[in-house]
Amino acid sequence: MLIHLSSWPEIDARLKTTKTVVVPIGSNEQHGPTGLLGTDWLCPEIIAHAAEKQDGSLVVAPTFNIGMAQHHLAFAGTISLRPSTFMAAITDWVSSLGRHGFERIYFLNGHGGNVATIEATFAEIYAEWSFVEERPPFALKLRNWWDLPGVHAFCSQMFPTGHGMHATPSEIAVTQAAYPHLVKTAVMEPKIAPVGPIRDALDYRARFPDGRIGSDPLQASPEKGRQIIDAAVPALLKDVAEFSAEVLP
Amino acid sequence: MLIHLSSWPEIDARLKTTKTVVVPIGSNEQHGPTGLLGTDWLCPEIIAHAAEKQDGSLVVAPTFNIGMAQHHLAFAGTISLRPSTFMAAITDWVSSLGRHGFERIYFLNGHGGNVATIEATFAEIYAEWSFVEERPPFALKLRNWWDLPGVHAFCSQMFPTGHGMHATPSEIAVTQAAYPHLVKTAVMEPKIAPVGPIRDALDYRARFPDGRIGSDPLQASPEKGRQIIDAAVPALLKDVAEFSAEVLP
Amino acid sequence: MLIHLSSWPEIDARLKTTKTVVVPIGSNEQHGPTGLLGTDWLCPEIIAHAAEKQDGSLVVAPTFNIGMAQHHLAFAGTISLRPSTFMAAITDWVSSLGRHGFERIYFLNGHGGNVATIEATFAEIYAEWSFVEERPPFALKLRNWWDLPGVHAFCSQMFPTGHGMHATPSEIAVTQAAYPHLVKTAVMEPKIAPVGPIRDALDYRARFPDGRIGSDPLQASPEKGRQIIDAAVPALLKDVAEFSAEVLP
Amino acid sequence: MLIHLSSWPEIDARLKTTKTVVVPIGSNEQHGPTGLLGTDWLCPEIIAHAAEKQDGSLVVAPTFNIGMAQHHLAFAGTISLRPSTFMAAITDWVSSLGRHGFERIYFLNGHGGNVATIEATFAEIYAEWSFVEERPPFALKLRNWWDLPGVHAFCSQMFPTGHGMHATPSEIAVTQAAYPHLVKTAVMEPKIAPVGPIRDALDYRARFPDGRIGSDPLQASPEKGRQIIDAAVPALLKDVAEFSAEVLP
Amino acid sequence: MLIHLSSWPEIDARLKTTKTVVVPIGSNEQHGPTGLLGTDWLCPEIIAHAAEKQDGSLVVAPTFNIGMAQHHLAFAGTISLRPSTFMAAITDWVSSLGRHGFERIYFLNGHGGNVATIEATFAEIYAEWSFVEERPPFALKLRNWWDLPGVHAFCSQMFPTGHGMHATPSEIAVTQAAYPHLVKTAVMEPKIAPVGPIRDALDYRARFPDGRIGSDPLQASPEKGRQIIDAAVPALLKDVAEFSAEVLP
Amino acid sequence: MLIHLSSWPEIDARLKTTKTVVVPIGSNEQHGPTGLLGTDWLCPEIIAHAAEKQDGSLVVAPTFNIGMAQHHLAFAGTISLRPSTFMAAITDWVSSLGRHGFERIYFLNGHGGNVATIEATFAEIYAEWSFVEERPPFALKLRNWWDLPGVHAFCSQMFPTGHGMHATPSEIAVTQAAYPHLVKTAVMEPKIAPVGPIRDALDYRARFPDGRIGSDPLQASPEKGRQIIDAAVPALLKDVAEFSAEVLP
Repeated sequence: MLIHLSSWPEIDARLKTTKTVVVPIGSNEQHGPTGLLGTDWLCPEIIAHAAEKQDGSLVVAPTFNIGMAQHHLAFAGTISLRPSTFMAAITDWVSSLGRHGFERIYFLNGHGGNVATIEATFAEIYAEWSFVEERPPFALKLRNWWDLPGVHAFCSQMFPTGHGMHATPSEIAVTQAAYPHLVKTAVMEPKIAPVGPIRDALDYRARFPDGRIGSDPLQASPEKGRQIIDAAVPALLKDVAEFSAEVLP
Repeated sequence: MLIHLSSWPEIDARLKTTKTVVVPIGSNEQHGPTGLLGTDWLCPEIIAHAAEKQDGSLVVAPTFNIGMAQHHLAFAGTISLRPSTFMAAITDWVSSLGRHGFERIYFLNGHGGNVATIEATFAEIYAEWSFVEERPPFALKLRNWWDLPGVHAFCSQMFPTGHGMHATPSEIAVTQAAYPHLVKTAVMEPKIAPVGPIRDALDYRARFPDGRIGSDPLQASPEKGRQIIDAAVPALLKDVAEFSAEVLP
Repeated sequence: MLIHLSSWPEIDARLKTTKTVVVPIGSNEQHGPTGLLGTDWLCPEIIAHAAEKQDGSLVVAPTFNIGMAQHHLAFAGTISLRPSTFMAAITDWVSSLGRHGFERIYFLNGHGGNVATIEATFAEIYAEWSFVEERPPFALKLRNWWDLPGVHAFCSQMFPTGHGMHATPSEIAVTQAAYPHLVKTAVMEPKIAPVGPIRDALDYRARFPDGRIGSDPLQASPEKGRQIIDAAVPALLKDVAEFSAEVLP
Repeated sequence: MLIHLSSWPEIDARLKTTKTVVVPIGSNEQHGPTGLLGTDWLCPEIIAHAAEKQDGSLVVAPTFNIGMAQHHLAFAGTISLRPSTFMAAITDWVSSLGRHGFERIYFLNGHGGNVATIEATFAEIYAEWSFVEERPPFALKLRNWWDLPGVHAFCSQMFPTGHGMHATPSEIAVTQAAYPHLVKTAVMEPKIAPVGPIRDALDYRARFPDGRIGSDPLQASPEKGRQIIDAAVPALLKDVAEFSAEVLP
Repeated sequence: MLIHLSSWPEIDARLKTTKTVVVPIGSNEQHGPTGLLGTDWLCPEIIAHAAEKQDGSLVVAPTFNIGMAQHHLAFAGTISLRPSTFMAAITDWVSSLGRHGFERIYFLNGHGGNVATIEATFAEIYAEWSFVEERPPFALKLRNWWDLPGVHAFCSQMFPTGHGMHATPSEIAVTQAAYPHLVKTAVMEPKIAPVGPIRDALDYRARFPDGRIGSDPLQASPEKGRQIIDAAVPALLKDVAEFSAEVLP
Repeated sequence: MLIHLSSWPEIDARLKTTKTVVVPIGSNEQHGPTGLLGTDWLCPEIIAHAAEKQDGSLVVAPTFNIGMAQHHLAFAGTISLRPSTFMAAITDWVSSLGRHGFERIYFLNGHGGNVATIEATFAEIYAEWSFVEERPPFALKLRNWWDLPGVHAFCSQMFPTGHGMHATPSEIAVTQAAYPHLVKTAVMEPKIAPVGPIRDALDYRARFPDGRIGSDPLQASPEKGRQIIDAAVPALLKDVAEFSAEVLP
């Protein structure tokens, strides 16, 4: 059940039996010479929607499509929230979903650069309750799609070299599976991009001139993407089921 | 050119000739017994994407899908930002797009409840420059899709009674044109919903028990939606072209 | 009853029977070559105080004299709050007045540029309650003095041409009625000022070199101002009475 | 020259020779059984306007009429900003006035409870410059009207007992001089109010049931108020002149 | 009992009988040619820890070591919070300590430049309660160590000339008593530093080239510091006892 | 060179050759039945100060002693900043240190719960520069003391079982080495504490009743702590040297 394609009475009815909602969350940022700018929010959306197709009881929120991508701002098309803005926005999403009675809010994340800020936001939200000695009416969980049980190993096996950290062949492949008409190609030098620390945008562009970090995205193909999605979907459904079943102390 | 389905070199190249970007912006909120929760962000997305199909030089950002919908929070599935959060997020989108060299940022809005906060945000952004006696490198414009030249008159003619202000047959029709398999129906009493002031969420639900304001959305049909889209697309392209051509003093 | 000229026991006693308070709110900003910088806060103050003279049971708060005027900052004497500051300040006024038991807080506004931010603030205030599923103990209303029933038509009739949008003859006239010794004159070219979009301060000054928008304020006179006040006062009293009598659902 | 009763070209012209502006600043809060709620903003306004009458070159801003009065909120009619809001608002006033070229911004304060927050705001404003190793284009000064050279001694002599700290006979007298038709009376027990620490609003009301602290305001009279004003006006003009003449290192 | 050197069960047990906590608070900022940068947080820490040695029932929090020192930023080693940050941090300390059941929170301050912001913070904290007509579960007190009863007089007697306002011989002496191996010396011209207003960092450095204000810190000695500490400790214990014993109305 | 025990001319002189500063940062929070509440800020302080003793050219800032510990608030003595406050405070520390010319700011962290917020803060700081296409004048680095090269392996070898995640024997041992007179003991059941997710304070206390997570801190001893410090100090000096030597692109 995709919230944005449902009516409110439909969500109302579903809330009688389902208290868990999945929020695909990512970023809109450069993904090397061939990757889609939307890669990091498309991947969790693709996987979550595919899971919802398999199990219609899964409630999926609209995709939170802009995250923390300040380091990519020297590349055209990147849109970033400051961490403080990102925190405020996530907080309001949680307040909204929690108010409707969702007791488990599961963020399926597609961008490594979001992790720290999302976790800081969880702490900010929990702190409101911790300071006043009350329990929040919900539990929050962050899961990167590549950290779904088994997925990372599967991707590593598929791309033993040149997987890297940004514009990885696995994420590019997932988007290619969903948008096969948009497969792009380019000459990339070096074949496997360099690695290094991540700081501000100009530092980033100087270190990683075409945007990739440690990756060789040309290994991606729609078929490989389909296999990754096929691995991720059951892992997601199982992970969400376990989170839903978790008994709070 | 949809930013999220492009690579950064493609946007980079396009910025050599195009300095305008269209941002579909809306809200995820209840739309009566039959309307999709995503209606207000789907409508500007549908229209902007249709325009981009006609004119590939149009640069369209990802859709800003959560807006100011606090008054709808008593209906399941609504997600709202507080106005202050909304302002911070729009500001960061503008900072990001402006940094890449977009000099005209055009928000195609799908939610009346967003208007005040978006305008307040424009003032907040401009104020940063006004206080220091400098010019901003961009101009901002807000346009509700129903206020595109000719569109409102067209919709009024199509729905002479029961158009109303929320869950209108015209917006429902636009989503039906794009998602014809999701046309929903319900018995609605009264046929045309009541009108009244908008305040907090519980006040809203007490006044408008099924969510509609002044509307009879059952008049909508995919075909009517198609006609509205067909009216809106050229109006949008013309409006954007005029904004792009505007010479700043 | 003007709050600032009353003692607390007097307000305390009045609150036993009156739950409504009127807050004159405006802006301190340039009003063309002849208009007073205080025009936009003086007008609602003049009208509200005149109404209170007719009906001493009307409770009037001190005037909120600085609003959102960033676009006028290129003209000396303008003082502006950023929208975010304006929102915080209005919120605190409302919290203060609401705490005393005022259940209807009516903002009589004198500045078009304030409207978006005031409405966004109302939403910000209501959102605090909407997120926690509670009712606020007050209702808020914004009314521009020129939108008081009948007033705009009256002004249009009085000034069929050259009324314009800023430094209008009607607002200038209202201040002249109250401060007849301060009637100023100047040569203005063109007689009727140009119109155009409102953006940042330097853009504004380039478009509207003497500060006016679309207006010919030399048509103003103290006598005309008196007539406008005489039209606005009963309209205000009636509007406030209706707001006070409104039954919340 | 009162800014709000001037046109922008008049302020523009005055700025050629005068770089100093006086901002009357106070609070709207209970002042005991007989004091006006506006006492703390009326006093600096009365004194500053009287000074401007004597010396028309004195530039006086509109009165900043709502300050930090959280401790008075248990008494009807009090309106308070949170300190953080107060800071944001003062900052915007300073940004606005500084932008026009005022190089000396002098706050004539009428409320002891404002002092800490105004000083913290000055530090907040200066910090923006201190962090980036630049000089601000203005200097800020805070002066309580009773601390104008000679005024405190004069008041102490006039009211050797029962002057106290809140709802003092001197401030009540100043308002009586300006609004003699509003002199109010009441039986007060004890004649001289108690003293004690200031904390939150309920604590305050429990300690100081009628609102006064340490004072016997019935000693006030319009004539005494006139004498205080006559003492304060030349002291203000001299103090402002010295501030204007101060050479920054 | 120093909180940071205790276990939570020890604090838990102590809270059964003691509801007061002392928070040493200061600043890390230049203190002239010879003073330690930590002087202003070391002094209250030294005094509070000495008091705790005499009376183990005194609960002392970790030292809040960075305060409001924007005016010292032109001198290397100074670290400053903006007042708004300082306020947020103090608020969180108070929320944390109040949550554990501390009903009296006593800030022993070592930096005059902190006073305004700490007082503004107290008002910000109290305002949260005042706006909602509730009592806070704690009372807050600020005491500068030199304002402990008798201490200022003692220091003035010890240093009849050249005590000054910054890098005073008394504060330097207190640190010398605790860190006698760190006594530093330097030639200072003039012997007694100038005085003047405090504004931004560059203004400060221009007025006070070596950092001192009005002081001759070379009069300090470890022995004099020991005497000051010996005077301050019993004064602190008595002051805290009185605060603890105060009955709230 | 410890900043707080130095004078400003000493830091000024050192800045001619050293551009790196180490900031010990931690948290004040419960550490199980026997651990000191200050453990997480004491550990990095102990290690950094020991390193400074070996190499006096190391510049060490005062210890940032309160971090993000909302989940520990159900245990007495814990003091926590909200993440947003923590971010503001770190930002001001960085602004202060960066203003003096420190080009490498190295945070030696002692609390796992701080990591997300510190990283989000780095992004917030960098974003200010990324949005305006400028380079920051400093690089930031976060290093947990147990992640110093070789240290984690050393601790794991020392405590093959029962190391756990909170109130670990290694951190307890480090504080015991520095404060051997404060070694505490207690009966702990179970010997090795349970593990689980970290959420709000009440959830935490329900899962981890005595505060420990996965650890058996009774294995700690001062001697073991000394060995850990001896391993960490050279690792820190080497790590800082490499960071200082890093050439920015």
